[in-house]
Amino acid sequence: MVSNNNVIIVAGGSGSRMNQALPKQFTLIHNIPVLIHTIRAFLSFDPNIHLVLVLPESHLSLWQKIQIEFLPNQKVSIAFGGATRFQSVRNGLAGVAGGLVAIHDAVRPCVSVASIEASFESAARLGSGVLSVPMKDSLRELSENTSRSVDRAKFHIVQTPQTFQVSLIKRAFEVEEQPFFTDDASVYEYALDEPVSLVPGDYKNIKITTQEDLEVISLFLAAK
Amino acid sequence: MVSNNNVIIVAGGSGSRMNQALPKQFTLIHNIPVLIHTIRAFLSFDPNIHLVLVLPESHLSLWQKIQIEFLPNQKVSIAFGGATRFQSVRNGLAGVAGGLVAIHDAVRPCVSVASIEASFESAARLGSGVLSVPMKDSLRELSENTSRSVDRAKFHIVQTPQTFQVSLIKRAFEVEEQPFFTDDASVYEYALDEPVSLVPGDYKNIKITTQEDLEVISLFLAAK
Repeated sequence: MVSNNNVIIVAGGSGSRMNQALPKQFTLIHNIPVLIHTIRAFLSFDPNIHLVLVLPESHLSLWQKIQIEFLPNQKVSIAFGGATRFQSVRNGLAGVAGGLVAIHDAVRPCVSVASIEASFESAARLGSGVLSVPMKDSLRELSENTSRSVDRAKFHIVQTPQTFQVSLIKRAFEVEEQPFFTDDASVYEYALDEPVSLVPGDYKNIKITTQEDLEVISLFLAAK
Repeated sequence: MVSNNNVIIVAGGSGSRMNQALPKQFTLIHNIPVLIHTIRAFLSFDPNIHLVLVLPESHLSLWQKIQIEFLPNQKVSIAFGGATRFQSVRNGLAGVAGGLVAIHDAVRPCVSVASIEASFESAARLGSGVLSVPMKDSLRELSENTSRSVDRAKFHIVQTPQTFQVSLIKRAFEVEEQPFFTDDASVYEYALDEPVSLVPGDYKNIKITTQEDLEVISLFLAAK
């Protein structure tokens, strides 16, 4: 069965080859690479989803070994990473035909099926569905030599997936890259002059950035 | 030996008696109440530190039982919580004479000795030392019906302890309470018209807000 659903899993740009250590998407958690945990979350949502994996060319042979071991019968389209996240996602979008597409960080393996569903539902209805959660912590805005307290109720933390109607996000990514593109939602808003729709996320859907994040994610994945 | 160092541990205002469930500062982690983990962190920094615990009057007898079991020989001054955090801290400050004072959330038991030291050192030198860490996540600022991407590099998450010279923070807390007082740093800045000094914090120093925070903190405290 062909699905209308696509996911682009962003697992590193061309610059990633410069890293000495193996990037965190390949770290084993409970004997399974982080990236496989992530992909399985989307297969739990839709076993027929079209998977596009964006990774640096230098990681291709490593990925092929991982796929043979963990997902031998699964079709996974490959796109190569660019110099920036914007370019990586654009390369991924070239492999997507139509319907809806989630764009997701490889290093967010704890995303729940409910969150994925909510983002697709919002994208189908409104064009976009971007996961976000309210700030739990107090915030300060920094300026040159000082900082000021700001009202945290006005801020949300943005997560992925960020899901879009394919026709809209493809059109958005035709725009010239801007330095203030921090995520795919910011490309969509800038290019289409249209706000994105936020969808309630889940605090467990953290991105692996530091060593302690790996420990926390290991705990969350064990409970899953 | 008398120390010049004080810490006010904020463990709930007078409104806390309304809660049905036992508040998180009393949750046992590895058989020790969260609050005791927190107090022990400050005793590791300075065994002679003057401890002031701010708690709702309705929790006093519970605290006394906990103290007999976990800190029988430790002097702990008690202040009762007010209707707001501002009032709770002001009640705590009444029990502090001079030197330096850290103000700390009872539900941040993972604070490191290095972080406490850094905040006291900054307060001694500059008047204040407020722990903060850079945002790891993308941020959106919400307005009425929409939201916009903001540059996360401009924002820091504020933690506790927030440490001050006692004379300065006492003077600050003489001000009339304002609705935008989100933490003690915001009181200091508003009342003294003087910016606070930020000190690098530690991502493990999280505040227990949700159930998953308890699981994560349990992991961090086991590693300690």
